[in-house]
Amino acid sequence: MGLTIGVDIGGTKIAAGVVDEEGSILETCKVPTPHATDALTEAIADAVRTVGAGHHVEAVGIGAAGYVDEKRATVLFAPNIDWRHEPLKDKVEQRVGLPVVVENDANAAAWGEYKFGAGQGHSDVICITLGTGLGGGIIIGNKLRRGRFGVAAEFGHIRVVPDGLLCGCGNQGCWEQYASGRALLRYARQRAFATPENAQILLSLGDGTSEGIQGRHVSEAARQGDPVAIDSFRELARWAGAGLADLASLFDPSAFIVGGGVSDEGELVLGPIRKSFRRWLVGNQWRPHAQVLAAQLGGKAGLVGAADLARQG
Amino acid sequence: MGLTIGVDIGGTKIAAGVVDEEGSILETCKVPTPHATDALTEAIADAVRTVGAGHHVEAVGIGAAGYVDEKRATVLFAPNIDWRHEPLKDKVEQRVGLPVVVENDANAAAWGEYKFGAGQGHSDVICITLGTGLGGGIIIGNKLRRGRFGVAAEFGHIRVVPDGLLCGCGNQGCWEQYASGRALLRYARQRAFATPENAQILLSLGDGTSEGIQGRHVSEAARQGDPVAIDSFRELARWAGAGLADLASLFDPSAFIVGGGVSDEGELVLGPIRKSFRRWLVGNQWRPHAQVLAAQLGGKAGLVGAADLARQG
Amino acid sequence: MGLTIGVDIGGTKIAAGVVDEEGSILETCKVPTPHATDALTEAIADAVRTVGAGHHVEAVGIGAAGYVDEKRATVLFAPNIDWRHEPLKDKVEQRVGLPVVVENDANAAAWGEYKFGAGQGHSDVICITLGTGLGGGIIIGNKLRRGRFGVAAEFGHIRVVPDGLLCGCGNQGCWEQYASGRALLRYARQRAFATPENAQILLSLGDGTSEGIQGRHVSEAARQGDPVAIDSFRELARWAGAGLADLASLFDPSAFIVGGGVSDEGELVLGPIRKSFRRWLVGNQWRPHAQVLAAQLGGKAGLVGAADLARQG
Amino acid sequence: MGLTIGVDIGGTKIAAGVVDEEGSILETCKVPTPHATDALTEAIADAVRTVGAGHHVEAVGIGAAGYVDEKRATVLFAPNIDWRHEPLKDKVEQRVGLPVVVENDANAAAWGEYKFGAGQGHSDVICITLGTGLGGGIIIGNKLRRGRFGVAAEFGHIRVVPDGLLCGCGNQGCWEQYASGRALLRYARQRAFATPENAQILLSLGDGTSEGIQGRHVSEAARQGDPVAIDSFRELARWAGAGLADLASLFDPSAFIVGGGVSDEGELVLGPIRKSFRRWLVGNQWRPHAQVLAAQLGGKAGLVGAADLARQG
Repeated sequence: MGLTIGVDIGGTKIAAGVVDEEGSILETCKVPTPHATDALTEAIADAVRTVGAGHHVEAVGIGAAGYVDEKRATVLFAPNIDWRHEPLKDKVEQRVGLPVVVENDANAAAWGEYKFGAGQGHSDVICITLGTGLGGGIIIGNKLRRGRFGVAAEFGHIRVVPDGLLCGCGNQGCWEQYASGRALLRYARQRAFATPENAQILLSLGDGTSEGIQGRHVSEAARQGDPVAIDSFRELARWAGAGLADLASLFDPSAFIVGGGVSDEGELVLGPIRKSFRRWLVGNQWRPHAQVLAAQLGGKAGLVGAADLARQG
Repeated sequence: MGLTIGVDIGGTKIAAGVVDEEGSILETCKVPTPHATDALTEAIADAVRTVGAGHHVEAVGIGAAGYVDEKRATVLFAPNIDWRHEPLKDKVEQRVGLPVVVENDANAAAWGEYKFGAGQGHSDVICITLGTGLGGGIIIGNKLRRGRFGVAAEFGHIRVVPDGLLCGCGNQGCWEQYASGRALLRYARQRAFATPENAQILLSLGDGTSEGIQGRHVSEAARQGDPVAIDSFRELARWAGAGLADLASLFDPSAFIVGGGVSDEGELVLGPIRKSFRRWLVGNQWRPHAQVLAAQLGGKAGLVGAADLARQG
Repeated sequence: MGLTIGVDIGGTKIAAGVVDEEGSILETCKVPTPHATDALTEAIADAVRTVGAGHHVEAVGIGAAGYVDEKRATVLFAPNIDWRHEPLKDKVEQRVGLPVVVENDANAAAWGEYKFGAGQGHSDVICITLGTGLGGGIIIGNKLRRGRFGVAAEFGHIRVVPDGLLCGCGNQGCWEQYASGRALLRYARQRAFATPENAQILLSLGDGTSEGIQGRHVSEAARQGDPVAIDSFRELARWAGAGLADLASLFDPSAFIVGGGVSDEGELVLGPIRKSFRRWLVGNQWRPHAQVLAAQLGGKAGLVGAADLARQG
Repeated sequence: MGLTIGVDIGGTKIAAGVVDEEGSILETCKVPTPHATDALTEAIADAVRTVGAGHHVEAVGIGAAGYVDEKRATVLFAPNIDWRHEPLKDKVEQRVGLPVVVENDANAAAWGEYKFGAGQGHSDVICITLGTGLGGGIIIGNKLRRGRFGVAAEFGHIRVVPDGLLCGCGNQGCWEQYASGRALLRYARQRAFATPENAQILLSLGDGTSEGIQGRHVSEAARQGDPVAIDSFRELARWAGAGLADLASLFDPSAFIVGGGVSDEGELVLGPIRKSFRRWLVGNQWRPHAQVLAAQLGGKAGLVGAADLARQG
């Protein structure tokens, strides 16, 4: 099969791109994400038609946040969009006249990294995405593993602290409350509030108050040596690495790939994650260790991955 | 392929059995487990020869506690036996003249239940074994998933309580410290010590002290309505069910199978586990729920599973 | 000294009362609580003048939420009112021409219970108030112990869960997030959401959704036997009792008094708290146990206590 | 009153000393601690007679680990000695013919520091002793506060981690499992085991294995810059400081005094404890902060304190 289209549905933008068999994006377009579900379906179809014009496209892969059923056809539930048992595959196929595959966005990104990014050469890979929340994908034996009902790899919602922080999912102590961009910001604000004398750089980047600290300030301040910012990254890494150690106990992959906005900081965050991973890895002197790798495709992983999953059929 | 032999290496006994393609055991023998590793290899070979005499056997599967490498040949580390990078496959093959497959015992038991027990008809199954500790096995897409290096499915050592109880593995807060036969006994003893007036039946079954309580007393007392014993099972179930909910977030199987000695109590423990599972299952109103099933093969699951894995080659 | 006035500053109402030496309230008045701090001072003074008219009053005691300094004169910080280093004693004295004592409201309530309520006859008493949050007061050697700087007995903010729930104070895992009216409501809503089939009575009292459950529904449903409501009280009691056991390790009083709205349910909540207290009390077979008593003065404890503290001078 | 004798009953030695009103020790003697309780009583009496010979002594104060009743006469329970409801005051008085006061050893040490050491000038002081375990004493309003039944200030056994580490007391998650000499050693061993490359100095001080690390090695290695040793002290300080913040919420003293063997390291441990204390102190911008001071009397605090408490009568 030749060219396919990948669609990445974000909170504010829909990105669509024509992708070839090597994972190269030949052409892209972006449109705003409408709120209404009907308008959203139309916008997806429009983006597909627009970007595909003039290309011989054979299939479409759509990545979206939420639970996607085992047939990769219906969105059972989406956290940010009003989709409940939404037959997205059918609706888009009717509009664009091409075979459509729907996939969870973190799964799609995992597949992109496995196939064309940091995971190349590995048959068993676990990807985690440290964005606003924490998502991920599972590749075992060179296949994306979606679970029996399509909702596997919801890494962000394993419980790492009994009676811990409230999560949007209704539970408490979910991993994404401790290892995510939102968690990093909370660490920085709490520490800057309690010990402002150790957060002078960090506080100077915003409005001077702990509540005025933004995510990008934490990265910037850490690079400048701000003790609170560095300590916040370390705290994030403590939780991320301990969680990877748990995933190693469960999945025993040869590589972990860490993506998402937080991972853009590179070794600032990956170094401490690796340390924490080794610290908590059970039986670490008796077993081969998985590598902990930085994602390579950045924000394009989901689009490229969705396109390739459509190619697989 | 026809008959194979399964070997289950326990702490005190080695059990070997000739197993047919339907998982029926045609003949068994048991010998004591020697301490010395050389004597142990001989004992395994002896058991295989003894039980196999008069049968046309084509392969041998050995289940043993510990890390087994990805070639199913070398025991990297065993917790109770002095095996470190032990080439068990080669040693036994030289002695018995048959192809040998080595497998982690909980993996073997999981495979047994999947193929011939509670997991029949399911393609994606997670088994947990609540014995003295907590072990398990992963079946995805009708295959046993062993991880890239052979050491996947070490469920007992995911961290469920940061800074929690010390574990024999060197870490703290491992799941098996909260959901296992040993944990059940601890719950019962602690509660009987603190509130003996609620543990009168339980205490009467032993020597009257909380330290004199044995595992079987807890089951017996729970059946007789002892409040502390019942509460101890409930506490075990709280942790077991919450952990299964985490595994559902990760693996999304269609069934969990709960085996091991603790599960012999049937609904006394499975009922509360199901409740706790539902309580903590993320997105439980939007997704199909995995069933939580009792294991069916009891103590034979490991032997039968090892034999069948040898048959697969 | 004869009559004094107690003032209890609540979120919506200011209550003032003339109190005699036996703790009897001779006359009361209530006025709305103004938002602006100047108006608030005036309102307090007005309430004092109104209720005191026709009585020979010798002093005024004011109970207010927040940190009150060691001179019982200045409110250092109040959580719900815009007081920061507010010289409340001076301002009110100027307006009413009587000696004024300012006290933390939970301290005042503790003193009221000690002197005229459940604590009579005890020299060493710890009071906890399970209201929306969790407050308390310490009586040792027949004296209210306010700390060196006036801010002792902030029971609600000891950390009982590392990395636990966010608290309004900026920390995580504070006791009042687990043992308070707000916590009880959270328990009920979470459980009703996860297992609605066990919360039919509870859900029927509100609008049928878990979010529609109100505090009074939980009490009502528990009295009617609703499993989720009963379990929610038990969870509250688990945390309350374990915390009392900690306070016993620290203070070793002869009695705990449990007040606040949650305690209005009487044995429904006190019974389980006593059980949990005994369960966690260290060395419980070697030491005399403190009693766990229900408060007797209800919502009047703070007013009566403040008045009596003013009498002490 | 003039001279009194203080007796400090340790696990291996009994130390007795004649102490004057300024807390100076005029003469001391040490004898081995016998195991049998009768022999122990005799040994205490012998030590008192020996050290007191030639002095005009008016009373004897004995400090011992365990619960001492409110009359300071009977040891209700001792953790290391076979005393259960032991009438120690009467037994020793009969033998030495002087008034005897029995006190919990950590209380005695707290009183010593308050009266003659770091606590001079403070009316409200909380002492914690970071030895093998964690003990402490409470001074409020210039008086030692022993609780209504004599067993207050058992700081080591407040629960800081639900479902945490097992404690010798039978509970889980006690503070002394996280902040004590024993905890420090566990931190160092765990970290050296998991990441030996960061513990080269530390490992070189013992036999090269993590289990061979002793307490004094951790201090020595930390002074030499060993990363694991430093990190172990930091972990200890995290827990110690967070616990002091809880004690500040409860007691609001003007000073904390940190004693015990761990505190011998001075700023190596006190600096991080102060940081952690400030990090977790609730309302830290609105309240005066307690000082965190190093103990000054070292191992003599208990003897001197016991002697002075006997003087108070």
